[in-house]
Amino acid sequence: MAWSDPNSIPERLLMGPGPSPVSSAVRLAMARPVLGHLDPLFLAIMDEVAEQLRWVFGTKNRLALPLSGTGSAGMEAAVANWVEPGHRILVVVAGLFGQRLADAAARQGGLVDVLEVPWGSALDPGQLETRLREAAAPYAVVALVMAETSTGVLQPLDGLSDLVHRHGALFLVDAVTAIGGMPVDVDRRGLDVVYAGTQKCLAVPPGLAPFTAGEAALDILRRRATPVPSWYLDLSMLERYWGGERFYHHTAPVSMIYALAEGLRRIRAEGLDARFARHRRASAALWAGLQAMGLSLVVDAAVRLFSLTTVHIPEGVDDTVVRGRLLNEFGIEIGGGLGPFKGRVWRIGTMGEGAQLEPVTRVLSALEAILHRTGGVEAAVLAWQTTSGV
Amino acid sequence: MAWSDPNSIPERLLMGPGPSPVSSAVRLAMARPVLGHLDPLFLAIMDEVAEQLRWVFGTKNRLALPLSGTGSAGMEAAVANWVEPGHRILVVVAGLFGQRLADAAARQGGLVDVLEVPWGSALDPGQLETRLREAAAPYAVVALVMAETSTGVLQPLDGLSDLVHRHGALFLVDAVTAIGGMPVDVDRRGLDVVYAGTQKCLAVPPGLAPFTAGEAALDILRRRATPVPSWYLDLSMLERYWGGERFYHHTAPVSMIYALAEGLRRIRAEGLDARFARHRRASAALWAGLQAMGLSLVVDAAVRLFSLTTVHIPEGVDDTVVRGRLLNEFGIEIGGGLGPFKGRVWRIGTMGEGAQLEPVTRVLSALEAILHRTGGVEAAVLAWQTTSGV
Repeated sequence: MAWSDPNSIPERLLMGPGPSPVSSAVRLAMARPVLGHLDPLFLAIMDEVAEQLRWVFGTKNRLALPLSGTGSAGMEAAVANWVEPGHRILVVVAGLFGQRLADAAARQGGLVDVLEVPWGSALDPGQLETRLREAAAPYAVVALVMAETSTGVLQPLDGLSDLVHRHGALFLVDAVTAIGGMPVDVDRRGLDVVYAGTQKCLAVPPGLAPFTAGEAALDILRRRATPVPSWYLDLSMLERYWGGERFYHHTAPVSMIYALAEGLRRIRAEGLDARFARHRRASAALWAGLQAMGLSLVVDAAVRLFSLTTVHIPEGVDDTVVRGRLLNEFGIEIGGGLGPFKGRVWRIGTMGEGAQLEPVTRVLSALEAILHRTGGVEAAVLAWQTTSGV
Repeated sequence: MAWSDPNSIPERLLMGPGPSPVSSAVRLAMARPVLGHLDPLFLAIMDEVAEQLRWVFGTKNRLALPLSGTGSAGMEAAVANWVEPGHRILVVVAGLFGQRLADAAARQGGLVDVLEVPWGSALDPGQLETRLREAAAPYAVVALVMAETSTGVLQPLDGLSDLVHRHGALFLVDAVTAIGGMPVDVDRRGLDVVYAGTQKCLAVPPGLAPFTAGEAALDILRRRATPVPSWYLDLSMLERYWGGERFYHHTAPVSMIYALAEGLRRIRAEGLDARFARHRRASAALWAGLQAMGLSLVVDAAVRLFSLTTVHIPEGVDDTVVRGRLLNEFGIEIGGGLGPFKGRVWRIGTMGEGAQLEPVTRVLSALEAILHRTGGVEAAVLAWQTTSGV
C-alpha cells in the first residue's frame, strides 16, 4: 500500500489494546484550521481542555495538562520530574508496563526496588505494607500501574495512598488504560502524580499524555537538588505555559489538542457515570460471549479490567494465524500477548467507541467463525441486556 | 470562545515563526481512519515516511524517523542520546534556540562550553577553529542551530563538519526552521545528528520531530557507558520499531504521521528544488516590500534566513498593538521578538504554504494600513516577478 492512494486506509475495527476506535467527529476536529500556539483563541481551548481533564481525572489539581507525546511520554515525565538520582523508588511490577516504569525510573538514576506480582494478579495491600515497613530506608516514590494493559488486571487502589503516605512516599500511578473508562478519582484516592494516554478509553488518537500532579508533588519538584534532566518534559516550565503566565515553552501540537478537546466534549455530553457503566456492560458482554464459546479468561473477576480483557488462546490454535485472519478477512484488530503471555493470550479491548454491543458482537462472531465455535454472540447479547441497569 | 462552537476556529494566516499555514489536504489526512500502530498497512506508511524524510534531509542514513513529539523533543533526543554525563560539549549560541540546546545538554550532565555569537549574526568558522584548537580537552559534541528562529540567521554550514570531525567531535545540528524550505544536505555536509520539526517549512501541524543520525553517531550511541536516561526517546529502541524488526516501543501518533505522509507527498509532487526556489522568491519579495515601506531588516543579506525574516519595529510603534490589530482585524499572525529582541523586532515567516506571493502581499498590505506606509506590496510583486528565474 502506498500513502498516495487516497482510498488506501480501510476502516479497521480496533479491538486491541489501543489505539481504540476514533469517531469521525474527533478525526474531523483535527482537520480544523491550525491556530498559533499563543493565539488567544487557542489559549482558550487549552483552558477548556485542562478543565475537562481535571473532571475526568477527578481532581482539583492546578497542574492538569496533556503532555506533547504519547502515554509513554507521560511515564517519562513522571520519572524525569520525580525520580532524582540516588532516591529510593519502589515499583510494583505486575506486567510489562510496570517493568517499563521500573526501567525508566532506573534510567533517571533512581535506586529502584521491585515488588513483583505474578502476571495476571493484583497486588495484595498487605504485601505492600510489609515491604514498606521492612524497608531499610524510606522510599521517595511508590509507583504502580492502575490498569495493566499487558495482563488485563485492574489494581484496586483504595487505601493504598494512605499506606504510601504514612511511609513518607509520593504515590505515582499509571492510568493510561483507565482514564475515561473507569474512575481514576485522583483526589479521593490521594494519588500524587498520574499519567494517562488519549488512545484508549478517551477515544482520541494516540499522541498526547494527560497528566496531573498535586501540590505535595509540586512542592517536592520545586525542592529538587538537581535540575530535571529533560528540558522537554520539565513540568515546572510546562506549568508556566499552561498556567496563567503563558510562558512560551514549545509549540503545542495544536491539531492533536483539537482532537482531545472534541473527545472530552463528547465525554461531557455522555456523562462520566454513563460512560463508565457502558464500559462495564461491554466488558461483561464480551466476557459472557468468550466464556460461552468455551474460552477461559486469564484474570479473576474480582480484579478484571473493564477496558481490556485477556483470554487464553485455546490449545492447538495458532495465535498469528487467527489474528491475521481477523485483520484481513474481518477487518478487526485484537492484540497478541506480550512477554510471558506471547502466543498464549489474546488481548481484546472494549475501550471508548469500542465499548458497545455492536463491536463486541462483531469480534465474537468473527472468532466463532474462525475457531468453529458457537454461542458467543448470543451470550453477549443476553449479558448486555441483563446488565442494562448496571 | 468555547471549543463546542464548531465555527469557533477562524482561518488565520500564519506568518509567524510557526506553526505555518497547513493545507486542507494535510489537515484532512488526519481525518482518515486510525490504524493500529503494528498494522501492516501502517508499517508500510512508516516505511514511506522514513524514505521521504531521508530524501528531504539529503541522507542515506538508515536511522531517519519522526519522533513522537514536537521539534523540541528532537532537541531532547539529540542531547539525551549523545550527551553523556561528564562529556565536554561545545554549543554555538547565537540566539534563543542555541541557548536552549546548551541548557538541555547541561541537564544531561554534559560539561557545556558556549561559543557566543551576537544575536543577528552568524558564526565565523575561524572563531570555531580557534576555539577547537585551544580547547583544554577535546569535545565529544559540537552543536549549533542551522536556522535560528529567534534571530532570522541562516548559519552557513559548508566546511564546518570537516573542522568538527578533525577535532574528533560529533556534529549535532538543529534544522527545525530549515527542513523543507532549504537544503539540509545531511550527507554532503557531513552532519552526524540532525533534528527538525514539522510545523515550519514542511507545512504540517506541530507534533512530530523528524530526526536522523549517521553510523558514526550510532556507533557512539552503542558504546555509551550509561543507559540513555530517557526511555521515551532512546533511539536504540526506537530504531528497532522503525527498522525491520518492528519491535513494539510505544504507540505511534498515527494521525500525525498521516499528516506528515501527506505533507511529504506534496513536497515530492512539487520537487525539492522548486520548493527551495519558492522559499527564496517569497522571502525576497517580503524583504523588498518591507524595505520599500522604510522598515529595516535585522540580518545582513549574506546570512539572512529564507524562511523567517526579522525586522526592526520602527521607533514609536507599539509591538503588541500592531500584532493585536494584525490578528484581530486582518486575521494574520506574525511573531514578536524573543529575549533581547522582545518589543524591538518582529518575526515574519515565509514557510511552506506561506512562501507564496499572495500571503506575502497580504501581510505587507496589512502592515501598510496599520503603520500608514506605502510601497510595500508594489515592491514585493516586482521582486517576486524578477526573481522567477531564481
